[in-house]
Amino acid sequence: MRHAFLISGLIVPALVAAAPAVAQDAKPVLNDPAALARIGREGARYPMIAADLARTRAEMDAMMRGGISVPVPKDSGGGATHEQHKRNYKAIYSGGLLYRITGERRYAEYARDLLLAYAKLYPTLGKHPAASNQVPGRLFWQSLNDSVWLVYGAQGYDLIRDTLTPADRQRIDDDVFRRMARYLSTETAASFDRIHNHATWAAAGVGMTGYVLRDRNLVDMALKGSDRSGKSGFLRQLDLLFSPDGYYAEGPYYQRYALQPFVMFAAAIAANDPAQRIFEYRGGIVTKAVTTAIQATYDGHFFPINDALPEKSLKTEELYQGVAIAYAATGDPTLLSIAQWQGRTVLTPEGFAVARDLAAGKAKPFPFRSMALRDGPAGDRGALAILRSGPQDDAQVVVAKNTAQGMGHGHFDKLNWLFYDHGDAVVTDYGAVRFLNIEAKDGGKYLPENDSYGQQTIAHNTLVRNETSHFGAKLKPAEAIAPTQLYFGGDASTMASTGEVAGAYPGVTMRRTLVQFRVGDAKSDPLVLDVIRATGGGAAMWDLPLHYAGQLIDTGFTLRSNVTTRPLLGKANGYQHLWVDATASARAADPRVTWMTDGRFYTWRTATPEAQVLLVESGANDPKFNLRREPAIVQRLENATDPVFVTLLEPHGSYDASSEMTVASDSAVTGLTRTRGSDAEIVVATLKDGRRIAIGIADDAGAKPHSATVAGRRFAWTGHIGRLDMEAAR
Amino acid sequence: MRHAFLISGLIVPALVAAAPAVAQDAKPVLNDPAALARIGREGARYPMIAADLARTRAEMDAMMRGGISVPVPKDSGGGATHEQHKRNYKAIYSGGLLYRITGERRYAEYARDLLLAYAKLYPTLGKHPAASNQVPGRLFWQSLNDSVWLVYGAQGYDLIRDTLTPADRQRIDDDVFRRMARYLSTETAASFDRIHNHATWAAAGVGMTGYVLRDRNLVDMALKGSDRSGKSGFLRQLDLLFSPDGYYAEGPYYQRYALQPFVMFAAAIAANDPAQRIFEYRGGIVTKAVTTAIQATYDGHFFPINDALPEKSLKTEELYQGVAIAYAATGDPTLLSIAQWQGRTVLTPEGFAVARDLAAGKAKPFPFRSMALRDGPAGDRGALAILRSGPQDDAQVVVAKNTAQGMGHGHFDKLNWLFYDHGDAVVTDYGAVRFLNIEAKDGGKYLPENDSYGQQTIAHNTLVRNETSHFGAKLKPAEAIAPTQLYFGGDASTMASTGEVAGAYPGVTMRRTLVQFRVGDAKSDPLVLDVIRATGGGAAMWDLPLHYAGQLIDTGFTLRSNVTTRPLLGKANGYQHLWVDATASARAADPRVTWMTDGRFYTWRTATPEAQVLLVESGANDPKFNLRREPAIVQRLENATDPVFVTLLEPHGSYDASSEMTVASDSAVTGLTRTRGSDAEIVVATLKDGRRIAIGIADDAGAKPHSATVAGRRFAWTGHIGRLDMEAAR
Repeated sequence: MRHAFLISGLIVPALVAAAPAVAQDAKPVLNDPAALARIGREGARYPMIAADLARTRAEMDAMMRGGISVPVPKDSGGGATHEQHKRNYKAIYSGGLLYRITGERRYAEYARDLLLAYAKLYPTLGKHPAASNQVPGRLFWQSLNDSVWLVYGAQGYDLIRDTLTPADRQRIDDDVFRRMARYLSTETAASFDRIHNHATWAAAGVGMTGYVLRDRNLVDMALKGSDRSGKSGFLRQLDLLFSPDGYYAEGPYYQRYALQPFVMFAAAIAANDPAQRIFEYRGGIVTKAVTTAIQATYDGHFFPINDALPEKSLKTEELYQGVAIAYAATGDPTLLSIAQWQGRTVLTPEGFAVARDLAAGKAKPFPFRSMALRDGPAGDRGALAILRSGPQDDAQVVVAKNTAQGMGHGHFDKLNWLFYDHGDAVVTDYGAVRFLNIEAKDGGKYLPENDSYGQQTIAHNTLVRNETSHFGAKLKPAEAIAPTQLYFGGDASTMASTGEVAGAYPGVTMRRTLVQFRVGDAKSDPLVLDVIRATGGGAAMWDLPLHYAGQLIDTGFTLRSNVTTRPLLGKANGYQHLWVDATASARAADPRVTWMTDGRFYTWRTATPEAQVLLVESGANDPKFNLRREPAIVQRLENATDPVFVTLLEPHGSYDASSEMTVASDSAVTGLTRTRGSDAEIVVATLKDGRRIAIGIADDAGAKPHSATVAGRRFAWTGHIGRLDMEAAR
Repeated sequence: MRHAFLISGLIVPALVAAAPAVAQDAKPVLNDPAALARIGREGARYPMIAADLARTRAEMDAMMRGGISVPVPKDSGGGATHEQHKRNYKAIYSGGLLYRITGERRYAEYARDLLLAYAKLYPTLGKHPAASNQVPGRLFWQSLNDSVWLVYGAQGYDLIRDTLTPADRQRIDDDVFRRMARYLSTETAASFDRIHNHATWAAAGVGMTGYVLRDRNLVDMALKGSDRSGKSGFLRQLDLLFSPDGYYAEGPYYQRYALQPFVMFAAAIAANDPAQRIFEYRGGIVTKAVTTAIQATYDGHFFPINDALPEKSLKTEELYQGVAIAYAATGDPTLLSIAQWQGRTVLTPEGFAVARDLAAGKAKPFPFRSMALRDGPAGDRGALAILRSGPQDDAQVVVAKNTAQGMGHGHFDKLNWLFYDHGDAVVTDYGAVRFLNIEAKDGGKYLPENDSYGQQTIAHNTLVRNETSHFGAKLKPAEAIAPTQLYFGGDASTMASTGEVAGAYPGVTMRRTLVQFRVGDAKSDPLVLDVIRATGGGAAMWDLPLHYAGQLIDTGFTLRSNVTTRPLLGKANGYQHLWVDATASARAADPRVTWMTDGRFYTWRTATPEAQVLLVESGANDPKFNLRREPAIVQRLENATDPVFVTLLEPHGSYDASSEMTVASDSAVTGLTRTRGSDAEIVVATLKDGRRIAIGIADDAGAKPHSATVAGRRFAWTGHIGRLDMEAAR
């Protein structure tokens, strides 16, 4: 089965029919012309590829009516010249595909004319005028975009190269591709040889160019770095940029972005250097990276940790390509259900196979499940822990960010967590402060508030000491230290993750356990218990924020509301961006906040009575309206040594605007207490029906026996997490 | 065709087969048992009714497993006893239907047992303990809900009445229905005889009870008021509560709610008093009310003017009933496409016809179109003007609220306007400050902020004088005065509405013209020009707010931002609920604000250079978090006599997160000027391509000729609105 897919989906040069009167070294090597021609003959039978073909033709025809536009580079991201050069590389790519699929030469001619225009322009270019702190490109403000141009351009060119006159071919070879490949490799070697996704795009572009131009030197540089030593380059990137579980260090949002050059270049390598066995490299890391990216989504949207845009979903070019290429490489039918959710595929032989097999009803559900994705090349730099209540789109998901820093796009939020329920992001991560490709927002770049708020610890759901961020918000010390995933496991009724990090603050160790547990109430299950503690470093002020999406309904404590003037939460480190709406003491009979998110209720409840509770909202010190305005609850302990915060999050009931029916708008929990056992934290939640659920979290994460006394009863368990359900007293 | 529907859809008692050994006066009269039995036999063929039957059975079976619960009334809206009595009346209704559809007696028996429990409880009840300022009910906190109970209860009871022993029947007749009908009519006659939707529910309940109990006196009271004079009652309500265009005085949200007793009781009257020709009454006002309610929606959601919840859509019980009964009465196949959008129908013979004909492919698109819906019983109390750029769901719609006050649920916002585009509400109306049926929010009632903010003028998109609301926010003077719809018309390229109101402020006449016009740019068409002026009353401070949904992108003037302390906009009349984020002067080269709503850009631009511009946000003085936090732009003229505000709203471009493509994020308008002609306002918009579009708005709304000079050219037109397109100078 697997082999069959390799044959039908990926390119096997031996099968390519020789084109008469064309030099053998101009024939396509990156995509199989025969397989493309088959799309032209049979694609109409399969709705997904038929739609793709129709859309691509319509876009291309519209563009061709507008003629050729290859402007002198001027604008940064989102600006007119930026968008035009993006349109152009897509048109070169689409032109090549459409020529092979439809047989219509006008597509090849349009791609040729674009490339000839680039052959005229490119040699005249220096550093892009809008280049800033990134490595400058020539066509674009950052070289990254030039690399992407090359990845698409090389593939499109490959498909029309044998239609050109020798003179045109020579010109485009030399003045576009060879020059661009040289610029993106040897002329910017420091960037090319990084272990970084920008370098992967460069490697893919340079390597594909090498295959197209039959230039082995370019291919070898792409695979093994500019000095061809293997200390950098694509293979080293495969070794170091993904963990053994296929997790990408920067997080799911950039994993998506990073994926595309990996999968596209891997397909090119498989076709041209089959002995490399690239899809088997490092235990199949390329396709694992695709399925891991899918696991790191909720309702199709990537968990937006680190610099990330929360609206980004699997409906994106990188994942259309990724799913199609991974399906061709593995034949895994669960990928077809992802393609179904995406609603489209790519106009390639791999995409054709997806469309055909989907139409044949071969899709199987994708196996979403609880998992801890180890971080770091050796898998020893923490983990992204995912607790899922089920495989369905609206299941409840807890994400514990016990990962390493993840380079420059990492946020300073060790042990942060996210919570999804009922199809919605409920406990949220702000993600990046950026309006991608929107010219008016600083050209679509990261905005100043990304540094001053988005990356700071207070913008996340984890502990802040003395109003300063983890590692002082400095990348270098943050890169040096990684958390440990101490525990991940459980059963259908009680699942837990414990992560620990030492050194986010000098001398301080922080540990967080998140427990997803069921109480047998269909209206709320499961609940999530959060126990986070810090040890060492002496007395300090500790804040534990919880950022949520929704409308506050009511609180169980008395609020002191700031109704006519809202003070700032603080002066720096992100605190200056938060207004304080209200404050309260958690020392109350019912220390809770209830809010509503998209027709469902959520009650947050603390068992830290000595805490102050502050209700805050982002948007202060935001003169240009760069921030979204979102609420958060902050628990604060002033002058506390070794603080422990215990919080319960309970989803409940529903509000249906159509039927005007409200169900279970009140919390079903009446109490939450924490006690310290001899070697464990013991938390007891009391339910409305009188039952009590005790959760024991042992200090030791191993398989030892533990015991404690709860309400006069003996509570004994073995291992890190214990549970005791006590019926209501009669 | 029409007659055929009357036969098959509505109840024709003559066709009902006689049940043996049952008194003729116990046979069903409100729903046709033979037609219901047919649903049981044939319903499985038609997906929509099959789904409805399955859902209703599942709900009913679950409820029956829980036994009978008829609690002593205690809670207000959303509370446990409130919700239980709602579930019960639905169960009585469903029990009757399911018994007739499936033939299973257990459904009839469960409904009977519920009714016997009510027969025990109801006679013991006095005024509801949670009753407040509304007319108290006995089962519910307001009598309105008791009336709804009676409408459903009577229909369910009707279907099982012939299955009961004479003793049970007598008991339920006397101790539930006769008592309840008496309470809701003669014992609360002042309420029963109002011209108000609460009284319609009461009339429907009392009248249906009359038919079921064969009590002509109850029927006559329902039709003609408690004194049977015809000065009140159902027929008078049909005369006075709807305009000749079928518009309901309180607005679309309450039109939806009001509809249900009208259509259900009309169906009962048609079946039992066919000579009344109720569906032909007043030119078919009952079915016209249904189609008008549908016209007053965008993407299925009711325009949320006055007290309204913006989430309310056509997917609601009232409209399932309304569409089914109107379809049965008229056979209008465009109603089927509405049923299709709703995705469900009702479990009645009328719903069966909808499901059957939908399955047969008979649906035709509903004819959404531009229209001015006259307000007032005689159609002379202003209008709701709707300008639609097309019939599709994502067309652009401008709504001008030139209607009368609309009773107690009316807001003080004469000449307010709303704007929809691309599937989204863009220029918004806050609607009601209320969390319907959410117990923790004051029991789901209107919140204090509904008075202090929601109803006030500043919460809307219309003129405010000296920080006070129209009519001093007093109902009585507001009810006395209605606007005039001076003009409504145009062609595909230029459509306009002009409304005027005199006396919202003493001595002041306000007039607003909204022009929806195309400039031939597919990325933005159409644009909306807003010209509003006030005349009389002397110098004053004038504010013109525009509330929008979206994220601010940038402004064309320099902002003075309040970054660490945000002042309040004012002290009273809603102003105390708005924070001032930033201020600016409109005297700038590019006096605009651009925001993004759901992936589309909108640029607001003023031609009132002497104005201050204030960017504000709701949420101040909101100690209990009862308000949503939403932005607005306020134009302010201090110490102005006879002010004129001229604003252009321009949708443009798109941002697509999937493809990361941004199109036309910049406005295509470069200038907007206003000049005063001899008898008209002249506004000129200059486009990026150099074209200039002049719009002339004559003071006179009739068909007279006008002329002016624009940029040295003569601009002549006939009628209220003129347009002159000037090409770019060569």
